[in-house]
Amino acid sequence: MKLNFQDIQRLDKYYRTNLITKISGLRTPFLIGTMNEKGKSNLAIFNSVVHIGANPPCLGFIMRPLTVRRDTYDNIITSRHFTINQVNQDIVTKAHQTSAKYPSDISEFDECGFTESYIDAYPAPYVAESQIKIGMSYLEEHHITVNDTIMIIGQIEHIIVPEDSVDEYGNINHVDLKTSVVSGLDSYHTVREDVKLEYARVV
Amino acid sequence: MKLNFQDIQRLDKYYRTNLITKISGLRTPFLIGTMNEKGKSNLAIFNSVVHIGANPPCLGFIMRPLTVRRDTYDNIITSRHFTINQVNQDIVTKAHQTSAKYPSDISEFDECGFTESYIDAYPAPYVAESQIKIGMSYLEEHHITVNDTIMIIGQIEHIIVPEDSVDEYGNINHVDLKTSVVSGLDSYHTVREDVKLEYARVV
Repeated sequence: MKLNFQDIQRLDKYYRTNLITKISGLRTPFLIGTMNEKGKSNLAIFNSVVHIGANPPCLGFIMRPLTVRRDTYDNIITSRHFTINQVNQDIVTKAHQTSAKYPSDISEFDECGFTESYIDAYPAPYVAESQIKIGMSYLEEHHITVNDTIMIIGQIEHIIVPEDSVDEYGNINHVDLKTSVVSGLDSYHTVREDVKLEYARVV
Repeated sequence: MKLNFQDIQRLDKYYRTNLITKISGLRTPFLIGTMNEKGKSNLAIFNSVVHIGANPPCLGFIMRPLTVRRDTYDNIITSRHFTINQVNQDIVTKAHQTSAKYPSDISEFDECGFTESYIDAYPAPYVAESQIKIGMSYLEEHHITVNDTIMIIGQIEHIIVPEDSVDEYGNINHVDLKTSVVSGLDSYHTVREDVKLEYARVV
């Protein structure tokens, strides 16, 4: 199949959305936990978490345009804190359900069957059921002109991960942790380690 | 294991790099193909390609700071075009090797054993061995203040993908295409579809 820009623009909307969300491959989805000014928690699944840097430790993610209510964005801007929580095979169906459009006064923790966890008085809720929990502080945001999406950048303030899933070199074993990967918005996959390669040098 | 920001900053550099690159989970690596003003091709592996939007079809990726020579960046800025090519199980070792620091006048296509492919006179080289080939035009870039990384945003101009790996709804089958996912900079995984979920609605 060979498509150019005009062909893509002419596609049925549903077909185009599937094709374009799937062509960027697979990635780990994460649950982002936040809290509003009234102390109500919010939880939403995001497929766009990306590594920004190790020193200082930073992650980013893409937020859809603010043309509709975005509790996650509002809560991050207000509280300056959020959590990023791993999705694993055992909770993938519940995690997916957080993408439904619940009202602001309803917590997805309650509706989707997750347990809010508060660690060291950090002002954002962690997901008890996630094996990897990351506490983040808001650093900066970038407005992507072409389609009004927003890239949020945060600094890692806390990491909670099972001791026995991290080796002596700092490598996290995502196979043991049953970390999910997702293709597009609907196809969840599990992974198996295939090959571990050395740092590449010119030979 | 529980670490705060100060603990992370005090970690051995190698350990910290592994931990932080792995904590953001798994994602599909891609080979980005470019060409310089003299017509010399360049190919480099990136782990940070992210979906930006389906209409218009856009992808982004993160470029490391420009404190050292970045042929990919220079070529994109000069030519305004680049290609994004899928990494699959059959070419993962060669794809990883493109991360070695070859001189500018050496093409990673030649050194790492890939075939340059030119389709419809598009001014950037595709990887013949990749099952998914995406032709991109440069749209915008964002300077991430905290660590001088750069987010590059491009528009999808061409898509080349095997007909029989796309279903009637536009879904690409990454299991059939043996698309790789990578954790950190070294651990390549293969995937198996676990569950496909419906669009989530409030119930």
